[in-house]
Amino acid sequence: MYVKDFLWTQDKTVKQLVDELGSVGFQSVELAKASDVIVKMKKNSAKIFLTFTSNMVTSGLRGFFAQLIELKIADVIVTTVGGLEEDIMKSFGEKFSIGRFSADDVELHEKGINRVGNLMINNESYMNFEDKILPILDKIYKKKKRWAVSEMLREIGLMLDDKHSILYQAAKNNVPIFCPAITDGAFGFHLYMYQQKHKDFIIDVVADFGNILFTTSHDDKKGVIALGGSISKHHAILCTLLNGGANYAIYITTAHKTSGSMSGATTEEAKSWGKVKDESDVATVNGDVTIMFPLAMIRALDILKEEGLLKEDKSNA
Amino acid sequence: MYVKDFLWTQDKTVKQLVDELGSVGFQSVELAKASDVIVKMKKNSAKIFLTFTSNMVTSGLRGFFAQLIELKIADVIVTTVGGLEEDIMKSFGEKFSIGRFSADDVELHEKGINRVGNLMINNESYMNFEDKILPILDKIYKKKKRWAVSEMLREIGLMLDDKHSILYQAAKNNVPIFCPAITDGAFGFHLYMYQQKHKDFIIDVVADFGNILFTTSHDDKKGVIALGGSISKHHAILCTLLNGGANYAIYITTAHKTSGSMSGATTEEAKSWGKVKDESDVATVNGDVTIMFPLAMIRALDILKEEGLLKEDKSNA
Amino acid sequence: MYVKDFLWTQDKTVKQLVDELGSVGFQSVELAKASDVIVKMKKNSAKIFLTFTSNMVTSGLRGFFAQLIELKIADVIVTTVGGLEEDIMKSFGEKFSIGRFSADDVELHEKGINRVGNLMINNESYMNFEDKILPILDKIYKKKKRWAVSEMLREIGLMLDDKHSILYQAAKNNVPIFCPAITDGAFGFHLYMYQQKHKDFIIDVVADFGNILFTTSHDDKKGVIALGGSISKHHAILCTLLNGGANYAIYITTAHKTSGSMSGATTEEAKSWGKVKDESDVATVNGDVTIMFPLAMIRALDILKEEGLLKEDKSNA
Amino acid sequence: MYVKDFLWTQDKTVKQLVDELGSVGFQSVELAKASDVIVKMKKNSAKIFLTFTSNMVTSGLRGFFAQLIELKIADVIVTTVGGLEEDIMKSFGEKFSIGRFSADDVELHEKGINRVGNLMINNESYMNFEDKILPILDKIYKKKKRWAVSEMLREIGLMLDDKHSILYQAAKNNVPIFCPAITDGAFGFHLYMYQQKHKDFIIDVVADFGNILFTTSHDDKKGVIALGGSISKHHAILCTLLNGGANYAIYITTAHKTSGSMSGATTEEAKSWGKVKDESDVATVNGDVTIMFPLAMIRALDILKEEGLLKEDKSNA
Repeated sequence: MYVKDFLWTQDKTVKQLVDELGSVGFQSVELAKASDVIVKMKKNSAKIFLTFTSNMVTSGLRGFFAQLIELKIADVIVTTVGGLEEDIMKSFGEKFSIGRFSADDVELHEKGINRVGNLMINNESYMNFEDKILPILDKIYKKKKRWAVSEMLREIGLMLDDKHSILYQAAKNNVPIFCPAITDGAFGFHLYMYQQKHKDFIIDVVADFGNILFTTSHDDKKGVIALGGSISKHHAILCTLLNGGANYAIYITTAHKTSGSMSGATTEEAKSWGKVKDESDVATVNGDVTIMFPLAMIRALDILKEEGLLKEDKSNA
Repeated sequence: MYVKDFLWTQDKTVKQLVDELGSVGFQSVELAKASDVIVKMKKNSAKIFLTFTSNMVTSGLRGFFAQLIELKIADVIVTTVGGLEEDIMKSFGEKFSIGRFSADDVELHEKGINRVGNLMINNESYMNFEDKILPILDKIYKKKKRWAVSEMLREIGLMLDDKHSILYQAAKNNVPIFCPAITDGAFGFHLYMYQQKHKDFIIDVVADFGNILFTTSHDDKKGVIALGGSISKHHAILCTLLNGGANYAIYITTAHKTSGSMSGATTEEAKSWGKVKDESDVATVNGDVTIMFPLAMIRALDILKEEGLLKEDKSNA
Repeated sequence: MYVKDFLWTQDKTVKQLVDELGSVGFQSVELAKASDVIVKMKKNSAKIFLTFTSNMVTSGLRGFFAQLIELKIADVIVTTVGGLEEDIMKSFGEKFSIGRFSADDVELHEKGINRVGNLMINNESYMNFEDKILPILDKIYKKKKRWAVSEMLREIGLMLDDKHSILYQAAKNNVPIFCPAITDGAFGFHLYMYQQKHKDFIIDVVADFGNILFTTSHDDKKGVIALGGSISKHHAILCTLLNGGANYAIYITTAHKTSGSMSGATTEEAKSWGKVKDESDVATVNGDVTIMFPLAMIRALDILKEEGLLKEDKSNA
Repeated sequence: MYVKDFLWTQDKTVKQLVDELGSVGFQSVELAKASDVIVKMKKNSAKIFLTFTSNMVTSGLRGFFAQLIELKIADVIVTTVGGLEEDIMKSFGEKFSIGRFSADDVELHEKGINRVGNLMINNESYMNFEDKILPILDKIYKKKKRWAVSEMLREIGLMLDDKHSILYQAAKNNVPIFCPAITDGAFGFHLYMYQQKHKDFIIDVVADFGNILFTTSHDDKKGVIALGGSISKHHAILCTLLNGGANYAIYITTAHKTSGSMSGATTEEAKSWGKVKDESDVATVNGDVTIMFPLAMIRALDILKEEGLLKEDKSNA
């Protein structure tokens, strides 16, 4: 395949752009390949693990993840607890504002504003979260005393009413959400305070290991879409590995392989651990997820839609 | 401004996507801002310096740069010589192929293939370049003995016949191309061999400093679009600085400011050197130029077109 | 303070080098500052949270971390489970080999070798881990049925006999190890299999949130040394925040702040969330932990030793 | 080779540290390898090309580079003009101060301070540079009218009197300095102004291509130590390539190969272009040069000194 001169034409669609980027070079080629791998996953009926980090839920990708669950693109979600807290905050109407990476942090602190890159969360949003989560925990505790994490998260999702919520769509569409470090956030603090009053309240992380293992079998085709690094990425890879390895994998990350970290690990490195063998079935895109993922996924959705392979979308209805 | 849930809709255009990315977070916000700054540059009739590195001309962005010159977006080009060599190769029909970042380099070398990231250039292309450039140098030398770099490049452009060529469009549209390190490539070797036979053949880099200085005045509004780092970026900034500083600047780069390098220097750092003062007139986007630049520029072109501010485009005619 | 010309002298010590790097520029300045902050933490009797990711335990830093615990530098450890598994493997004699980042991963997989950057772990090491961990789980279960994670890890440490082991030194020196995602690794699988046979075996992650909260109080001075990103870093920051914020913090990471991720978050961003206010008490070093951390820490240890502030070291005895 | 537990011992030397880092993992392994390659270059009497970017001369590495020239480590220097300007400023007593990456750039500009990462250069230093450089140009012009760049730089070096100056040591030790973009800085502006008054003053960049080509022959063993990216790195590689390729190469850079840029190009990629074949003769270290280069080089110098292979050092006399 040869490099082709890229040209602007008016009103170009994202699909057309990503198609053309496949002949441009460097990360644009990897991006187009990643989009192809997503289409391939779906066409071959792979069970798709979608993993993301909390900061992506702080961003506007949150609504997109919820939509992907509704569209039956994601079969299993793995994430960190901060994002789930913020998904709940947003479903109760909290708003996060857009600021600057170089904001004065001492000043922000005095105003009660917490910074995540160029996004801002008010202290009030955390207080309101506390007000909402305590009655939720009460309801959960009344149902039973011992919960696997994903079961509890499903229960919370059923109590929400926001079609742009990840927890809501996951619960409604029977997509399990796994969160291997459920206590690593404000939610962990509230769980702890609740347990202080109810010593028999147990969050069973060990049981959830079985739950994620049984989401797929050795016989299933399996795909991983890992956005960013962290334990979300690792947990999905680990679980597909224990079931014989993923058949398809795309990683989108700003980290590099030079540090030997999980965040920067490539789909090449994954081959040493698992069974992905064919070059055409994996892609690693280096870049910011907030831009790279919409590009790769929009093209994949447009293609799947055209081919009638997409569940009907009602999220904009 | 608040974070908004991003949603897929069928056949989304690039313009709509970039508009929406402005409310997503992290680099997507910076990207939308960069697109705005480009529109602002043009609306305020700034003289625009476009700088890029050689590898971007290896990629398919080459045709895009040529088109931007034809569309009167770029008023001054600053680049490195490798890209100009490849622009010439491509206008004589050489083709570069797309491969893998992890190709076996010893094997490639045995096959006479040179790798630039995931792009491949054959040794033959360099040999053909030599065949083409020698008669060109002859014609140039016959016209006069002492050439400022940009004058020579214009002369070469006039000898080409490829509407997707940067040199061709620049010559045709009276856009000067500056290349402060004209000998740093195969072209440098050919210049040297030629000078061995013609001792009075002089490439005058000092005179070209005056030429770039006089492309703009203190009174002109000036904008810089710097893609990647290198001396291309530095030279454009230096020259706008000597004329009172740029009014607008966008930098797109994968480098980070932590190393103190020019490649990673931000538009913030530029403020310490120049006169850009308003936050809304600068943007630094961290990411691969082959993806980020088309996104920001396509939206800007669509807007300028809609508002009748764009010269008629004939590059697809 | 002015930039000073750096000069080689024979047999320069690390301490002298890092002192001099403080006047060189870019990350060398940040590194020297980080070393100062560590000294300051210790002189002011701050409780020190040391966090690291699993890949650092894959590397030879594992012995260094154990030594720092023995030397009473670290008061609280937060890490991910992969590193704990490897700490156990190493204390039972497993060896990891050094290879290449660009190794052929398909070939490695066929040989039963798993790659972590340029380090290699044999499948046998995981099998041997399984053989060792099962009797350990049996002993733990016989003691009691419900364990907070850090209590269980202490119990495991008491069963090991390797002075270079993190778990061993932590248990011996009463330094708690927190691991908020205890199931995210082979250990998680073994816990799950064990629980299948012993339904009343409970790993209580919620109780451990209280344990980490009570390692320090609002009145304690607190310091954070965060190596790499991940939930280890986040969990330590969260817990110091809930106790009024850290007084000192150093972050060493290869990630950048541009993506808005926790891994790349700087000590500046930390100020918006917590109470660190003085510029001299925080430092963010961008670079590979395997080099940056030994440099900063060796100088700090040499200074503390000279000033008689270091517990006697027996790790080389 | 196996991973070894790293341990602190009091007063550890840099040499011992780097030796031990060779068994730690990730970039520490690459660093130790880079140090080995430097020793190998010297032992095998390779002609060594040392390349660096301007910001490294802004930093305290400037004195180190001068010392390496005096110690006969570097045979050929390739760099950018900004660093040469600052080398001259420093030899006339200008001082650069150390500040913060997050300084307020608008405020700095008002104070007449220019920022390079966390280093600061006063406007006065540029004015004093102008006062010094004009009489130097006069003397040069009086000698002859047409100068190859490296010849002119040698002439300037002979006029300086500072043993920590790169230009001074290079001139005194007959080490040529190549600067393919001599006009890309304040010096370019002064050359231009001078030429305006003396139209027959010619800086011949083409002739210098021959000069760098003839620094080595096909038969010489050749080594490249490339610090950072930019045309300095590219020019050295190009010239060794035209003479049959380098036998040894180390690259130290913060850039990554994912963007396809020269700055991030690895020594692997170099193999596709040239003739380096043996894995043991090349190393790419990812990290900040201000830390990585002193570490690798100090160990190499200590080894060469011990083995009596080092020219006597007088730079601290």
